[in-house]
Amino acid sequence: MNLDHDTIVAPATASGGAIAVIRISGTEAFNICDSIFRGRNPLSQATGYTVHFGRIIDGDRFIDEVLATVFRAPHSYTGEDSVEISCHGSNYIVSEILRLLVAAGARMAEAGEFTVRSYLAGKLDLAQAEAVADMIASSSQAAHTLAAHQMRGGYSAALDKLRDQLLHLTTLLELELDFAEEEVEFADRKELKRIMEQIGDEIEQMRSSFALGNAIKEGIPVAIVGAPNAGKSTLLNRILNEERAMVSDIAGTTRDVIEEQINIDGVQFRFLDTAGLRNTDDRLEQMGIERTLQSIEKARIIIRLIDATMLDRESLTGKIALPAPDFPLRDDQHLLTVINKIDALPDSKFASDIISISARNGIGINDLYQALRNIISDLFPNEGETIISNIRHYEALSNAAEALQNGLIGLNNGLPTDLLSEEIRTIIRHLGAITGRGMIVPDEVLATIFSKFCIGK
Amino acid sequence: MNLDHDTIVAPATASGGAIAVIRISGTEAFNICDSIFRGRNPLSQATGYTVHFGRIIDGDRFIDEVLATVFRAPHSYTGEDSVEISCHGSNYIVSEILRLLVAAGARMAEAGEFTVRSYLAGKLDLAQAEAVADMIASSSQAAHTLAAHQMRGGYSAALDKLRDQLLHLTTLLELELDFAEEEVEFADRKELKRIMEQIGDEIEQMRSSFALGNAIKEGIPVAIVGAPNAGKSTLLNRILNEERAMVSDIAGTTRDVIEEQINIDGVQFRFLDTAGLRNTDDRLEQMGIERTLQSIEKARIIIRLIDATMLDRESLTGKIALPAPDFPLRDDQHLLTVINKIDALPDSKFASDIISISARNGIGINDLYQALRNIISDLFPNEGETIISNIRHYEALSNAAEALQNGLIGLNNGLPTDLLSEEIRTIIRHLGAITGRGMIVPDEVLATIFSKFCIGK
Repeated sequence: MNLDHDTIVAPATASGGAIAVIRISGTEAFNICDSIFRGRNPLSQATGYTVHFGRIIDGDRFIDEVLATVFRAPHSYTGEDSVEISCHGSNYIVSEILRLLVAAGARMAEAGEFTVRSYLAGKLDLAQAEAVADMIASSSQAAHTLAAHQMRGGYSAALDKLRDQLLHLTTLLELELDFAEEEVEFADRKELKRIMEQIGDEIEQMRSSFALGNAIKEGIPVAIVGAPNAGKSTLLNRILNEERAMVSDIAGTTRDVIEEQINIDGVQFRFLDTAGLRNTDDRLEQMGIERTLQSIEKARIIIRLIDATMLDRESLTGKIALPAPDFPLRDDQHLLTVINKIDALPDSKFASDIISISARNGIGINDLYQALRNIISDLFPNEGETIISNIRHYEALSNAAEALQNGLIGLNNGLPTDLLSEEIRTIIRHLGAITGRGMIVPDEVLATIFSKFCIGK
Repeated sequence: MNLDHDTIVAPATASGGAIAVIRISGTEAFNICDSIFRGRNPLSQATGYTVHFGRIIDGDRFIDEVLATVFRAPHSYTGEDSVEISCHGSNYIVSEILRLLVAAGARMAEAGEFTVRSYLAGKLDLAQAEAVADMIASSSQAAHTLAAHQMRGGYSAALDKLRDQLLHLTTLLELELDFAEEEVEFADRKELKRIMEQIGDEIEQMRSSFALGNAIKEGIPVAIVGAPNAGKSTLLNRILNEERAMVSDIAGTTRDVIEEQINIDGVQFRFLDTAGLRNTDDRLEQMGIERTLQSIEKARIIIRLIDATMLDRESLTGKIALPAPDFPLRDDQHLLTVINKIDALPDSKFASDIISISARNGIGINDLYQALRNIISDLFPNEGETIISNIRHYEALSNAAEALQNGLIGLNNGLPTDLLSEEIRTIIRHLGAITGRGMIVPDEVLATIFSKFCIGK
């Protein structure tokens, strides 16, 4: 990762809109833009937070009419001189402007490089910077709430509190070392143990929130599984309200796994439509079934779709049990058995615990949603609970938890004060890695964190 | 189409980028934004062309940190008070902000509604407004050059020149009417005929440029056609440099038509990978073949891909003719016969007029590109020629050409001066409809034109 203040450029918007925004940041931002921008006055003479109409030119050739917004260091996202060029949203125009800016001396920014600069300028800590990426990715109220809390520093504050408590402990322990000859005990060992156990509980609570936080962020994966022609693609299309998946009455129409996101009551679900499970010699179909089994592994909720017309009446009314699922199920997975095609059995009465639907006609879909809601509300956090959603944080908390266990063992075994203090400093280091506060974060760690960002952020 | 100055709002960027821009325009733009924006000062107090950092809130709930740019009437795109809110590029955040703005009194803009307002404010004529949409859609240098010329008024100027010449003729003719008793002839009929014929030629030239202009704008459609397993999907993947289409050695893998755009030397091509042509009883495959025949109809260039291993040597060396294509070909379509899988025949010599490639190994792909370039350079316009690319303009020019023919017939038949003048006014009206200058454009015409725009423009 390049940590110079050379001038970087990147598109900040997705392609395909009415307008596109190109971001330039660095010491030469104004000069580079002025070499291709013709407005009333050069941007280098403009004050910060002002917008300027002008043309982008390539020598004699007109490229576009644009608006250029000027930000003067340190009052910009990166803390550097910056320009945002707002042009017509054509891929061709955007690529031409990028080409001209690079020819004039700018460099294409790496993923997350604007935010790295913001971090290095002290405008964000690492957890906040990562929350910026999560804000951009957030596609549901639940995910947005997590990311917004973290971006605005709520999560960093919770970690800082733990860190302050631990620092206080080390201060007391190190004071004992200074007065070593006098054998005083500034840190009462019983009290120390109590505080460490309490911190351990808090770390553990954060750590165990990861599975949920991650599912909220990425969308709760729901696999739709069943025999060929059970109506899986029809159900997906029904849920999405569009003809996303190719549907026919020929069993085995779906070859590849189709994944679509949908928001139900502020929670994002990732529905995976899969190839039907059956024994087959068809090579392409076998490939599809392998992918289905992978989808089942990844899912937290599995909708097992059964064709009502393939069952005997006894199992529909609950008099005999439904056949067992023909795929393995983990403890943390929820199984929803759903009977489809009930429109073909108009006068049937179904067992009360069975969700019965007609994917084709939309009957019973709200019951299915309600069942999903019930599963989700069991999973969901209580008000005010800190939820982590970042695997890097999860690993740091795991490391901190391990160091804390070592500290407690040491405490029980009468570990010398200097070694005990060292254990506590290890916990602080692991917790500190989450926000990067109070420490120098190695370049390669920054590179890993920011490589997950999008270009232009 | 709503032509009030009520306050409208729309996302102006595509979803999926680091940032998103939301546009608000109308008399209440500042008040509506201020109801959900918390910055150092209200936007209603800000001067035009300034940018303001703040938070978007929903009551107590934090939504996002944003930048708001203020434009004061008449110095904005629409000529009205306007705000652009630049937020994090999350669909969730964008939809929340839109929801809040609508709740505060804004209305979701219709397609093109910002540009309609720009037109009604006299900032653009109709042809220029349409060019804005073309600029946004432009994906190649050729398409961009057309659109930029039109947006900056070059095309309108050419039309204005014709219009001025015609207006001058009507003035002379109407002068004759004023002096009717004296039987003077201000407009020499021979000269009149010469000028009208010349204008007719210019209109005809513009009109006939439409086929090319449209292909430049939309991308030249190229269908890749051939027997199952000839390597069509492999060729598409090779051209795109990515694994776009599903490839296997099982004939009939491609079911649906896959369309991908690629830019070769500043010209956009739309490559259509099709299902292989053969007789089959498979219903899904038959559906695919029907779509292939539709693609062939739409194409201007057809790459007929032949598997070298399925041909006898004689036809490869040109000693006997290749089999005739098994699909119909129009006069305006170019056929490129391409022999694939030549890596399977390492020592073969091919006839010099055959393009021979290995899609799998990338052999001969540049020869194929060169052949495409040759076809294109035959098609392309000369420097300075006006090219039209808009079907509405084509229809207006066709109407003008027809009126002009009527005028010439009238002239030859000694049509009375007042009727002749009326014929010329009809030409003027049709030409005027292109830019909308010098006339009142009916609302329903505006609605049709701008309904093709994207939301947010």
